[in-house]
Amino acid sequence: MTDRKAQRLTKPEEYAELLDQFDTFLFDCDGVIWTGPTLVPGMTDVLTMLRSKGKNILFVTNNAKKSREMYKKAFDSFGIQASVLNDSLESVIQDEIFGSAYASAIYLSKILKFPADKKVYVIGEEGIEQELKSVGIQFTGGTDPEDRVFIPSGDYSAIKNDSSIGAVLCGFDMYVNYKKYAKAHTYITNNPGCEFILTNADPTYPAGGAFYPGSGSMSAPLRFSTKKTPTIIGKPHKHMMETILAAHDFNPERTIMIGDNLETDILFGINSNITTLLVLTGVTHEAHLSGENKSDTVPDYVVQSMGDFAVLAEKK
Amino acid sequence: MTDRKAQRLTKPEEYAELLDQFDTFLFDCDGVIWTGPTLVPGMTDVLTMLRSKGKNILFVTNNAKKSREMYKKAFDSFGIQASVLNDSLESVIQDEIFGSAYASAIYLSKILKFPADKKVYVIGEEGIEQELKSVGIQFTGGTDPEDRVFIPSGDYSAIKNDSSIGAVLCGFDMYVNYKKYAKAHTYITNNPGCEFILTNADPTYPAGGAFYPGSGSMSAPLRFSTKKTPTIIGKPHKHMMETILAAHDFNPERTIMIGDNLETDILFGINSNITTLLVLTGVTHEAHLSGENKSDTVPDYVVQSMGDFAVLAEKK
Repeated sequence: MTDRKAQRLTKPEEYAELLDQFDTFLFDCDGVIWTGPTLVPGMTDVLTMLRSKGKNILFVTNNAKKSREMYKKAFDSFGIQASVLNDSLESVIQDEIFGSAYASAIYLSKILKFPADKKVYVIGEEGIEQELKSVGIQFTGGTDPEDRVFIPSGDYSAIKNDSSIGAVLCGFDMYVNYKKYAKAHTYITNNPGCEFILTNADPTYPAGGAFYPGSGSMSAPLRFSTKKTPTIIGKPHKHMMETILAAHDFNPERTIMIGDNLETDILFGINSNITTLLVLTGVTHEAHLSGENKSDTVPDYVVQSMGDFAVLAEKK
Repeated sequence: MTDRKAQRLTKPEEYAELLDQFDTFLFDCDGVIWTGPTLVPGMTDVLTMLRSKGKNILFVTNNAKKSREMYKKAFDSFGIQASVLNDSLESVIQDEIFGSAYASAIYLSKILKFPADKKVYVIGEEGIEQELKSVGIQFTGGTDPEDRVFIPSGDYSAIKNDSSIGAVLCGFDMYVNYKKYAKAHTYITNNPGCEFILTNADPTYPAGGAFYPGSGSMSAPLRFSTKKTPTIIGKPHKHMMETILAAHDFNPERTIMIGDNLETDILFGINSNITTLLVLTGVTHEAHLSGENKSDTVPDYVVQSMGDFAVLAEKK
């Protein structure tokens, strides 16, 4: 248990002082920009204000179902401006959406320099496939109807090794099944040096006010069966920052991570050595910040809502 | 690392001395009685000899796919006599086959006294259903075609809580899918006191000389998503012995567990405070017993093959 305390900001002058300290704002989305289907009040004004001040904005999300292109539609539906440039790697520098599917593709291409003659076996949906395509990496599995089937009990004849598979990438897949698990297990255990990568390790996925098994849970059978420790890309893991820095140019010292989740967003900022700001519009409430059950993960700053910064826009 | 050493038996008089010490012989099957499709040489004679000496024999297997009735067919195919009495609980005392599906059913009925008006949600196949039926426990899921489907990505409308579910039982299921995981997650997290039980936690399942994800891996998404620790019935866990003792009458002090796997069979014997005998016809080899990489799990006795005891039958 640490004695470090977060600084609580409530006054317009405190908000203004904070903004002056940073050039780049990394935002988590659900719980910060919107909560489920509802935009957090004031957020449109806040984002417009940040842009008018010349701040860099990046939306950093663990959601592995969606490509940046697909994620942009969520922003569009709220009337929020977010850029996506879907051409060469060089031109994504202004790209504002950074999801764990894209981060995994960047990790493979820029960090691992994944060989052009090798393929990635995907447990995941369209979003991951789109992002692998965007960086020119070959893949199998994913949405292939051949793998969206049940194999008869006890019949392993469809499971054969493919030595061209150099990595298994697991994200969120509503069509997960035994064939996919058995193929991925076979590739990881038979192909020397086969990478085992998770887009993210979130245990649950929120939908309609309830929680369901998330990406981190979907990949759990492979962690058990292969006994291999996967490389996890999404928040709170440092690979997420490593991939953002591989695709974007900014000074981490003048960067702040803004999120609603202590164990993903805030821990990600801490693991990445950047300043952190917690908002209370999502999964974290006052009770998590003090008292006996308080978390060991302490943000630098806390505000009630990122929308509260809109007061600075109104003053203009 | 322990300094305890296993006693290696190689001579007929050593085999005879061992037999005299025990009345009840608990056998693992694959790797002991047979290896894949091949009967271990001498085993038919050894089992006949044990029976002629009035020994109790129990085949204790983690295989959760099969009911006792289904497992008996495997014995029949090798020409090995094994009793199955499929009527009331009282009459299973002479029953020689004890699988983790049956053990789970016994655990629910005899140990937990599972309420008659509650249902078990099954992730598993026919074998588990047969065993739950044999002890009169209500269940849903399992082989129901309604749950052997893929639900559309992002559509959680088919997932509703059912407050009559009092336990989730996970075994081996080649038809596992997101709907099953989401339903099981919902029952475990919404129904107060809902039991979370695994037939066994074997990470892999051997088939045709290769390994594939096993029961313990199939249930891993629920361990991650619910953050609940399941009750594990199969070897090496003590619940397996607890359920055997609930169904059979014997003296543990004159009982020996015979198996090929240090981490399931032998550890099960140690956890259950009974004598253990390792055979080298399965997954464990000389290299696991000495040198730097030796296991911390040390059996009381080691023999090359249980079939070697046939020398005693020939002498008669």
